[in-house]
Amino acid sequence: MEQNIIFIPIALAVLGLLFMLVKMSWVKKQPAGSDRMQFISKSIKEGALAFLNAEYRLLVVFAVIAAVLLFVVSQMVPSTSWMIVPAFICGAIFSALAGNIGMRIATDANARTAEAAKTSLPQALKVSFGGGTVMGLGVAGLAVLGLSLFFLFFLGQFIGTDPLNFYDEMTIVLEALAGFSLGAESIALFARVGGGIYTKAADVGADLVGKVEAGIPEDDPRNPATIADNVGDNVGDVAGMGADLFGSYVATVLAAMVLGNYVIRDMSLDIPFTDNFNNMGPILLPVVIAGVGILASIIGTFFVKIKNNDAKEAQVQKALDTGNWAAIILTLIASWFLIDWMLPDTMNMKFFGEGYKTIPSINVFWAACIGLAVGALISFVTAYYTSLGKKPVLDIVKNSSTGAATNIIAGLAVGMKSTFASVILFAAAIYGSYELAGFYGVALAASAMMATTAMQLAIDAFGPIADNAGGVAEMSELDPQVRERTDVLDSVGNTTAAVGKGFAIASAALTALALFAAYVTFTGIDGINIFRADVLAMLFVGGMIPVVFSAMAMKSVGKAAMEMVQEVRRQFREIPGIMEGTGTPEYAKCVDISTKAALKEMLLPGLLTIITPIIIGLVFGAEPLGGYMAGVCVSGVMWAIFQNNAGGAWDNAKKSFEAGVMINGEMTYKGSDAHKAAVTGDTVGDPFKDTSGPSMNILIKLTCLVGLVIAPILGNHGDVVMASETSSEEVYFIDAEGNKTILTEKQVEYLENGETSTIEGGENLKNKTETVVEMLKNENNDQVTANVTIIRTVEGVETTETKTFTGTEEEVRAQLKDVDGVKIKIKDKE
Amino acid sequence: MEQNIIFIPIALAVLGLLFMLVKMSWVKKQPAGSDRMQFISKSIKEGALAFLNAEYRLLVVFAVIAAVLLFVVSQMVPSTSWMIVPAFICGAIFSALAGNIGMRIATDANARTAEAAKTSLPQALKVSFGGGTVMGLGVAGLAVLGLSLFFLFFLGQFIGTDPLNFYDEMTIVLEALAGFSLGAESIALFARVGGGIYTKAADVGADLVGKVEAGIPEDDPRNPATIADNVGDNVGDVAGMGADLFGSYVATVLAAMVLGNYVIRDMSLDIPFTDNFNNMGPILLPVVIAGVGILASIIGTFFVKIKNNDAKEAQVQKALDTGNWAAIILTLIASWFLIDWMLPDTMNMKFFGEGYKTIPSINVFWAACIGLAVGALISFVTAYYTSLGKKPVLDIVKNSSTGAATNIIAGLAVGMKSTFASVILFAAAIYGSYELAGFYGVALAASAMMATTAMQLAIDAFGPIADNAGGVAEMSELDPQVRERTDVLDSVGNTTAAVGKGFAIASAALTALALFAAYVTFTGIDGINIFRADVLAMLFVGGMIPVVFSAMAMKSVGKAAMEMVQEVRRQFREIPGIMEGTGTPEYAKCVDISTKAALKEMLLPGLLTIITPIIIGLVFGAEPLGGYMAGVCVSGVMWAIFQNNAGGAWDNAKKSFEAGVMINGEMTYKGSDAHKAAVTGDTVGDPFKDTSGPSMNILIKLTCLVGLVIAPILGNHGDVVMASETSSEEVYFIDAEGNKTILTEKQVEYLENGETSTIEGGENLKNKTETVVEMLKNENNDQVTANVTIIRTVEGVETTETKTFTGTEEEVRAQLKDVDGVKIKIKDKE
Repeated sequence: MEQNIIFIPIALAVLGLLFMLVKMSWVKKQPAGSDRMQFISKSIKEGALAFLNAEYRLLVVFAVIAAVLLFVVSQMVPSTSWMIVPAFICGAIFSALAGNIGMRIATDANARTAEAAKTSLPQALKVSFGGGTVMGLGVAGLAVLGLSLFFLFFLGQFIGTDPLNFYDEMTIVLEALAGFSLGAESIALFARVGGGIYTKAADVGADLVGKVEAGIPEDDPRNPATIADNVGDNVGDVAGMGADLFGSYVATVLAAMVLGNYVIRDMSLDIPFTDNFNNMGPILLPVVIAGVGILASIIGTFFVKIKNNDAKEAQVQKALDTGNWAAIILTLIASWFLIDWMLPDTMNMKFFGEGYKTIPSINVFWAACIGLAVGALISFVTAYYTSLGKKPVLDIVKNSSTGAATNIIAGLAVGMKSTFASVILFAAAIYGSYELAGFYGVALAASAMMATTAMQLAIDAFGPIADNAGGVAEMSELDPQVRERTDVLDSVGNTTAAVGKGFAIASAALTALALFAAYVTFTGIDGINIFRADVLAMLFVGGMIPVVFSAMAMKSVGKAAMEMVQEVRRQFREIPGIMEGTGTPEYAKCVDISTKAALKEMLLPGLLTIITPIIIGLVFGAEPLGGYMAGVCVSGVMWAIFQNNAGGAWDNAKKSFEAGVMINGEMTYKGSDAHKAAVTGDTVGDPFKDTSGPSMNILIKLTCLVGLVIAPILGNHGDVVMASETSSEEVYFIDAEGNKTILTEKQVEYLENGETSTIEGGENLKNKTETVVEMLKNENNDQVTANVTIIRTVEGVETTETKTFTGTEEEVRAQLKDVDGVKIKIKDKE
Repeated sequence: MEQNIIFIPIALAVLGLLFMLVKMSWVKKQPAGSDRMQFISKSIKEGALAFLNAEYRLLVVFAVIAAVLLFVVSQMVPSTSWMIVPAFICGAIFSALAGNIGMRIATDANARTAEAAKTSLPQALKVSFGGGTVMGLGVAGLAVLGLSLFFLFFLGQFIGTDPLNFYDEMTIVLEALAGFSLGAESIALFARVGGGIYTKAADVGADLVGKVEAGIPEDDPRNPATIADNVGDNVGDVAGMGADLFGSYVATVLAAMVLGNYVIRDMSLDIPFTDNFNNMGPILLPVVIAGVGILASIIGTFFVKIKNNDAKEAQVQKALDTGNWAAIILTLIASWFLIDWMLPDTMNMKFFGEGYKTIPSINVFWAACIGLAVGALISFVTAYYTSLGKKPVLDIVKNSSTGAATNIIAGLAVGMKSTFASVILFAAAIYGSYELAGFYGVALAASAMMATTAMQLAIDAFGPIADNAGGVAEMSELDPQVRERTDVLDSVGNTTAAVGKGFAIASAALTALALFAAYVTFTGIDGINIFRADVLAMLFVGGMIPVVFSAMAMKSVGKAAMEMVQEVRRQFREIPGIMEGTGTPEYAKCVDISTKAALKEMLLPGLLTIITPIIIGLVFGAEPLGGYMAGVCVSGVMWAIFQNNAGGAWDNAKKSFEAGVMINGEMTYKGSDAHKAAVTGDTVGDPFKDTSGPSMNILIKLTCLVGLVIAPILGNHGDVVMASETSSEEVYFIDAEGNKTILTEKQVEYLENGETSTIEGGENLKNKTETVVEMLKNENNDQVTANVTIIRTVEGVETTETKTFTGTEEEVRAQLKDVDGVKIKIKDKE
């Protein structure tokens, strides 16, 4: 059992995918309604697929170029295998597939939800949530399956039999696996940004001409942009979000695996680490937890149901919450047992600047609990700042009475203020989980947040399905009762979307930190010191990127929306009888405009994200790139929270007017001046919350992933001034900046054969260091003396260093672990 | 001469102040116009003084509390003298005085400028720029005088005769001097924030009711808030800015002095540093440059004149530019000679992670040039993003045609995008000046930017004077030609204000970095490593502070403006004949409301700024506080640039409509829908550019200053596990986190007397390290062998470490400078 534990997540992933297929066929069997409904649904589906296909065609070009570059890198760097290339491609394909599955089921489910809403609200929830479930399980199942299979395959390829080489070999495995994550996250970036631009361009275009100029209601079939608007919901909120969470999920698990490998390294100082799980329990744990999370999510979905046909938002929300918490609690219980089973009772971990500490494995469980608790609290904070009827939204409503300017100022201030509690919580999560179990703890905290992704996504995705169902009902002119029922679902969907965003940014930020930690160790540098001017300069540059990225995304929406406006105006002008309902609008033209604009506009911010860290890494080296990554994370988290919450608050401030709000003792409704000011705020907030805000998650993760993948190239950066060989044959460089890089077996081979060409400044490599350790016991057998001699020849000066350590054997061994940065493995005499 | 060089800046400061008095009496001798004009001018002056007095009363409370806390700190920390308290109080008083002088002359000059404008434009420029000159010289003269006198006084108090103690003693001098800077910067924060809230509350209040509701023009005497509005210009743009730049100026020079002390330390490894300037050339250089900058500014002011009575903005701008560049170039030429004269030809500097480097002193000059070049380029970027007729402003104008929402999005995007070039330039400045001359180079780059503060401020301050002159002209119903002439000056003033803001944030950020570098060395920590979870967590918390601070400042403006609106409405309602001009509005009530609101609202953000770093330092220690400081700087710079430029661009987008703009082929003017949208944008931008944006400068500087002042407390933070004594009697701690703190003489005294109570974890102090160095020459006399024995006893384990270094004597001596972090001074046998 223990030996083959990797098959557990594989089996659970397959189970998840099977359950998905069952659910999918159930949804498809539901009645799809009238011909009109089917036509609309089909139009939306076709538009969405057309966009995805166009997007994929463009991304194939990107993927091919990236794959070639990765191949070049893998040939240059001994610790990177060429197999990173197929992993990258599969990551990209799986990510696209996950988005595609979600979008297909969402477009299938919309008309069926509308049809079900004719019968009853519980049935409508069942169909729409069924669609969400398909998407959630598709994403989670593919992610776990892809990761596990590639891991299994790479294990066979790279792991040999000598336990002394395990760490280096596992590094190669995980470096190749990082390709899978990089592929997934790259696609996610383009999907999120492209989808975000698409949906908002269509939305703003449809509203500005349709609602404002022509005075026809939302989702009116006479509006040429209405199909594009509904397509937008699917490509942005469904496919974009699916790819986003697929990327997060994979990156989180990968980061935890990489840090698991460091746990193993830290525990292998005296003797190689062994356990019952092929000696890699800490690496496998996050994958197994992810697998169990799928099972827990499946169970959770059975709790999501309502009975009452007259249920209101609160009851629907409660049903979703019940399912969500069931999944979370089940995962948490399982994690307790898994951690107890898979990790050694105590673990030796190196804490930066504090040396080695012994950590009981249960600490990892507490770190996971911190992750969940902080995730839930951040969601709560998000909900507070963006919910109807709470102080921040009411404040914006109140400020709408004095015009658009005060509404905008109030909204901006809400978004800005909301960073306070979120960041404090987030900092507490970093601090707490690190104190408990180092960066492995941070990674597990993120993993715990992401473990029930299937359930989270099911809840997130049901919103846009219900929204679309409302659109289909409107366009097909169904009984208003149908629209009322879908509106109940839609309204709950808005809340879950806002809460989901809080969760997403928290988990993305923790994942980015775990990747950042992995990066530091991959490059072999000794931390990221911002007291270095180049690191500090790059911290500033990193801080600037999310700001400029957001500006680009916002401007793109504006440009694309303007094109849409002109097309809709043209159609109203040129197609006869369109307003009377006798002429048919050219829906496809609008879909086409959104598609082209989104694709064109997503390129520049996407490339900015990917290329900047590569340039900085190559020009300035590993540590400045680390500064850049930190800058992107810090600034990205602020701007994500600011934009998401400001946008969410503006949206709900506008919605408040629908039921009427009390301002200065007067009830104020839709159509009032205050409402118009609130609409202005909402329009500003739209790109904030649906385009630039959610892109921040991917921006920070992708930045760290790119860093991680190019890390091995950077490790050798700088002039090599000394190579040092310890008694254990471990060889490392200390470059001009004092950074240390541990060499791989392959590099040592080069070194020993005099083939130093691949290592910069290789001519100094023959300067070597010899280390001899002699350990003597005293007469009472209770004390030892270790004599360590280190002879170094560096640039003409030979130094002989002898150190004597006296104390109990345990104490001395502890001290010998790291003598002047030279790691010593004592080989006891037989 | 060389020995008494400190008297040069003192003399130049006195010269500056004398010239100021001459200029002041000249301005006051100018005709002040009709009774009506004098009455208005007097009302503005009284309102402004009332605000300042109320503000000072409140700040006295703050200063007393802060002084008591500082006194407690000085008693706890051996390296901090109680004399930091009078320095702090004088810093606060000088800062207040600088603001006060500026505001008095500005309120004297406004009516006189209006009166002069009756005669000619050149005369109006002469009077208004004369007022600006008084302010500029007042600020610069007081800053240099205060710094120099305190420095001179502290030298006498703390510097003994033993050159070996020079560095430690100078640290005490500079730590006490930091009190002066802290006092200045604290007052600046409250003055800036309070003034910013005041001016915008009055402005928005006056506009909303006066212009929009009552339909009367700006500065109409019937508007009760009109005096408050003009008072606001003075307390915000004059007194606030004066205190701000006074603080920047002092902080910049101080930071450069502290880093000059490290240059001396780094050059004292073999033998104590000596030069002709009492062995402190590198410390004195920045003060002398500042003094010379005053002289250069005085000369520069003579170039500011126009001859043509029909001059347009371009000619006025050219006159100002000529004066400005004259001052800059003179300062630069003088700097070249001063650097050559005062610094040793080559300097040994320790570069973090790179060891010691030898730097030719001319590099310092190039660093200063980089500072000036980058400052000028950032001003240029700022001007591009905020100027009339340039693409960004035109883009906002274009987007105004589709409503307020698109105007807002475009403005936000302009502000966000403008961070790109500014941050790249700024990062280049850090990188370049550091590469040239380490952090001393960074500090000198900032000093060069700030050297001509007197001139900069003269140019900055003349704008609000001209603005007020226009107000006086309007309210006194003078000939429209007078208003036209003052409008020319006002318009130039708007441009110089925007450019000045770019310069201010660049210099503030560089100063903050220099303070940050000084902080790291003051605490004795070994850099700020963001690979530590606590440091990383605090980096995030620091990044959040500027965002929340900005939100608070913006909301405060909103709240205060609402109170003002209600008061103005009440007066219009209750005072009979007010609109007909027969009843007199109660101006004083409006002044009072703005005053109270500003004072109340400035407290919370002010305290947040000051208290947060103290809490973080005390709870988490020195390195996390460093992370916090870096977070505040990175995020503060982004939000400063974003808010200043967005606000400036919105303002000019609105102004564009005054002359008419072409939108989609149609000329559009004031009063159009597009113009209304632009007014909305400008209203959002007002608190951005006049309240929260400019506060960022002070926020980042003050954060670093607070850190610097509490640094000595933090240096001993953590458990002391080892004290190590070298052969040179230099004693340091290594705490649990591996940080090293060099002890002062006083601490060593405690240690030797067994009085360890002031040092945390003092019981381990008796663990000591003995170092013995023996150096032998070989027979040929060309090689030496140094045997170093270090015997350490740490927690029961005794280690003996012997190191042998062989090579030429020069090489070996170089290596001996730092053996395992133990600094060894070789005392050759007689």
